[in-house]
Amino acid sequence: MVKAYAALDAGKNLTPYEYEAQILNAKEVRINVQSCGICHSDISAIDNAWGKSEYPLVAGHEVIGRIIEIGSDVSLHKIGDRVGLGWHSGYCNTCEYCKADDHNFCGKTNKTIFGQYGGFSEEVTADEVSVIPIPTELNHNNAGPLLCGGITVFTPIIEFDINKNHKIGIIGIGGLGHLAIKFYKALGCHVTAFTNSKDKNDLLKTIGADEVISSTNKNIIKELGVKFDLLISTVNVKLDWNLYLSVIKPRGRLHFVGAVLEPIDSSVFSLMWGRRSISGSPVGSPKNIKKMLNFCVEHDIEPIVEHFKFSDINNAIEKVRSNEVRFRAVLSW
Amino acid sequence: MVKAYAALDAGKNLTPYEYEAQILNAKEVRINVQSCGICHSDISAIDNAWGKSEYPLVAGHEVIGRIIEIGSDVSLHKIGDRVGLGWHSGYCNTCEYCKADDHNFCGKTNKTIFGQYGGFSEEVTADEVSVIPIPTELNHNNAGPLLCGGITVFTPIIEFDINKNHKIGIIGIGGLGHLAIKFYKALGCHVTAFTNSKDKNDLLKTIGADEVISSTNKNIIKELGVKFDLLISTVNVKLDWNLYLSVIKPRGRLHFVGAVLEPIDSSVFSLMWGRRSISGSPVGSPKNIKKMLNFCVEHDIEPIVEHFKFSDINNAIEKVRSNEVRFRAVLSW
Repeated sequence: MVKAYAALDAGKNLTPYEYEAQILNAKEVRINVQSCGICHSDISAIDNAWGKSEYPLVAGHEVIGRIIEIGSDVSLHKIGDRVGLGWHSGYCNTCEYCKADDHNFCGKTNKTIFGQYGGFSEEVTADEVSVIPIPTELNHNNAGPLLCGGITVFTPIIEFDINKNHKIGIIGIGGLGHLAIKFYKALGCHVTAFTNSKDKNDLLKTIGADEVISSTNKNIIKELGVKFDLLISTVNVKLDWNLYLSVIKPRGRLHFVGAVLEPIDSSVFSLMWGRRSISGSPVGSPKNIKKMLNFCVEHDIEPIVEHFKFSDINNAIEKVRSNEVRFRAVLSW
Repeated sequence: MVKAYAALDAGKNLTPYEYEAQILNAKEVRINVQSCGICHSDISAIDNAWGKSEYPLVAGHEVIGRIIEIGSDVSLHKIGDRVGLGWHSGYCNTCEYCKADDHNFCGKTNKTIFGQYGGFSEEVTADEVSVIPIPTELNHNNAGPLLCGGITVFTPIIEFDINKNHKIGIIGIGGLGHLAIKFYKALGCHVTAFTNSKDKNDLLKTIGADEVISSTNKNIIKELGVKFDLLISTVNVKLDWNLYLSVIKPRGRLHFVGAVLEPIDSSVFSLMWGRRSISGSPVGSPKNIKKMLNFCVEHDIEPIVEHFKFSDINNAIEKVRSNEVRFRAVLSW
């Protein structure tokens, strides 16, 4: 039997839970979980915030581990490999998007924490394509959050051809946001951090923010002027999006990677002036996750994490819920 | 004195109005108005729908005419030239956007119908940069609507590198929409017209629509599937934007060129799946207006218009208000 921590109902504390190991398909691998980050999406799944959770639910999708078993047709990995697994645990591998290395646009993805048991467990299984080798240079106790939080904020660099000449704003500085600061600073961008936590200011400058601005102080935001090429929102609450649009340059964009449940309610005029865009994106493709991991090695980037034992999982989740963690909680056995 | 038709108060019928001819600045030209289209923005200005109208207001910004006087430093035009004038009657000509031929992003534009008298008049004045030579191949009685309606829907071709492989949807088929059908069909795109007027179907296929779909029939729209690279909305009413987003392909966009006053209220999830964008754009630059006019000559495109005498202006406006015009009303003296 496999030991895990499961939610037995919406919003409940997790409880120790055992399940029978799943038999591998030909293209699947079994990963022994060494560490797993806690993402806000895990909490949304535990709470059934998106209305699609089924219980018992084993969350956890920022997995680092070692391969302990491979299916009969697996060619990308071998037993003993150190690997990571993120939001997607499989793709159709045959659609136009999969064929173009845009697996995250596939219409038939499997999700690590829905329809199967996720990484708050001793082991997790996944299609080999969704499993990513972890470079030896990266600290495996800290690398987990790159697999979901990291790739989510790294993807816009590739999608929008971001380079050192761009001015970037990161709205919300938690698990995703602090990695965004590190990535965009490493690229050479001017980086503005928008946060509602005053106590983070010095730390955010240390990790690369050129300026730190209150995310809710309308006057200060207005005074920034029209200067941003790209604003990335990582928050899951509604902010004054028209205000943020007003400081974006022509052809710039406000890009959502945080799942806000409330509609965006932007004015058409805010978009028309200057041909601005609002957009969103979901995590990233295996190809880009590999690119991001190499970028992390090259620029010596790793997530800032707080470590918890799996036995302390409910305490860790509570700290994530109350925004006390700087910046990502990572569980290990 | 210059004869014109002015709104003396919000929403009122226009009345004959005379004003003293404006003295030209060094870089300005005076245009004798031969014809002028009626755009929905003229009606918004007459009605003070955007809260910035001042009366008496002389609307009209789809002008075709001849230059009858030039300022001392004008070098781009000479007396007798046949020219057009659209939404902008001047730019700062010194900012980074003007220098990059993106004049329509300039923060200090003059508007043809605000702060000066527009084209529902015997004459209109404008900075030489905003005045566009009209190719002799184009019919000057019909070309006016290209200067605002036309360039507004032509701009996305350039901004988003649209080519014959793209599937395009045009939402709302009036002055802008029918020109969009012609432009995108001439490019070789697959064009879907979304309209709420059943009587337009055959006509829209004649001018280039590959299919005509009810803009409010949710089931039929859903059945289209995920197929559009670009949807252009020309309407000024709220539609089910999340529904429209759901038929847009990954990396595609819903682009607004019609000024809807109500917020867009799209869900973040609709954007995140497939890295979709919502955007908007305002008219277009002089450079792109010239490009569009050449495109019209090359592809034998002209607006479909109904002609009215200026003396019949209130009747013409009433027909525009009640969506009876196919597809643009054009006034002439």
